[in-house]
Amino acid sequence: MKASSTVRRLEKGDYDKGMLELLGELTVVGDVDKAKFEAQFDVHASRGDDYVVLVIEDETSSRILATGTLLIEHKFIRSCSKVGHIEDVVVSDAARGQGLGRRIVCALMDAGKSLGCYKVILDCSDDNVPFYEKVGLSRKEVQMVKYFI
Amino acid sequence: MKASSTVRRLEKGDYDKGMLELLGELTVVGDVDKAKFEAQFDVHASRGDDYVVLVIEDETSSRILATGTLLIEHKFIRSCSKVGHIEDVVVSDAARGQGLGRRIVCALMDAGKSLGCYKVILDCSDDNVPFYEKVGLSRKEVQMVKYFI
Repeated sequence: MKASSTVRRLEKGDYDKGMLELLGELTVVGDVDKAKFEAQFDVHASRGDDYVVLVIEDETSSRILATGTLLIEHKFIRSCSKVGHIEDVVVSDAARGQGLGRRIVCALMDAGKSLGCYKVILDCSDDNVPFYEKVGLSRKEVQMVKYFI
Repeated sequence: MKASSTVRRLEKGDYDKGMLELLGELTVVGDVDKAKFEAQFDVHASRGDDYVVLVIEDETSSRILATGTLLIEHKFIRSCSKVGHIEDVVVSDAARGQGLGRRIVCALMDAGKSLGCYKVILDCSDDNVPFYEKVGLSRKEVQMVKYFI
């Protein structure tokens, strides 16, 4: 599959274009019907520009081939500045090697910069460090986690 | 200074109790007057329970000795679950060795669990990994960053 050149914001109709199946290539999606998807979409929308969920759609099949999310955090530090958290970046196996991951991440970084973030951060596996270094990020700290389920 | 036993939510009046001076022990705070602080407080409040900013106050001096923030992210994955991001944890130099950092982080983890997060995550330096391991977190991934200023 070959993607269109457009990186655009997520729309509610992307539920029917395989958005959740794509996220399922990254991790467990679980039980999310259309109503639940739309309700979460509305939660994001109610937070102003805090959620920037971007997608790339295949122009012939109308399937979502790549996605990534920027969550903007409002801080007191640095003159009440913002930090962008890049989350849930995934490119479909069916569309590897077309540079879609780079385009999504660069668009998320551009969004963070234009929305006033002083930095964007993300967590990735050791294996993905070289990719993120190529798109302009640098290794910084250690991610720690506590699971509840 | 000896702290009270209470971990409580941030209040607007904490501006006058040294909240920003405390954050200044962590990083650059910059120019934040009372109006700007209160405006950012209101931004947090407008996001429902997405921001849980906790503090510990010294009972005699009425100064804030420790703080930490939980930012809750609303995801599509895992049945539209939530992830808690622990941010801006700091204990005043004047109150080291009293276990305040542990109390703040444990209270943030409890808040994340009770608000429905399937995990909480944070980024820290290599030096702080042993502290966070002691309070129950585990090393997971690599944090990457891109600064804009």
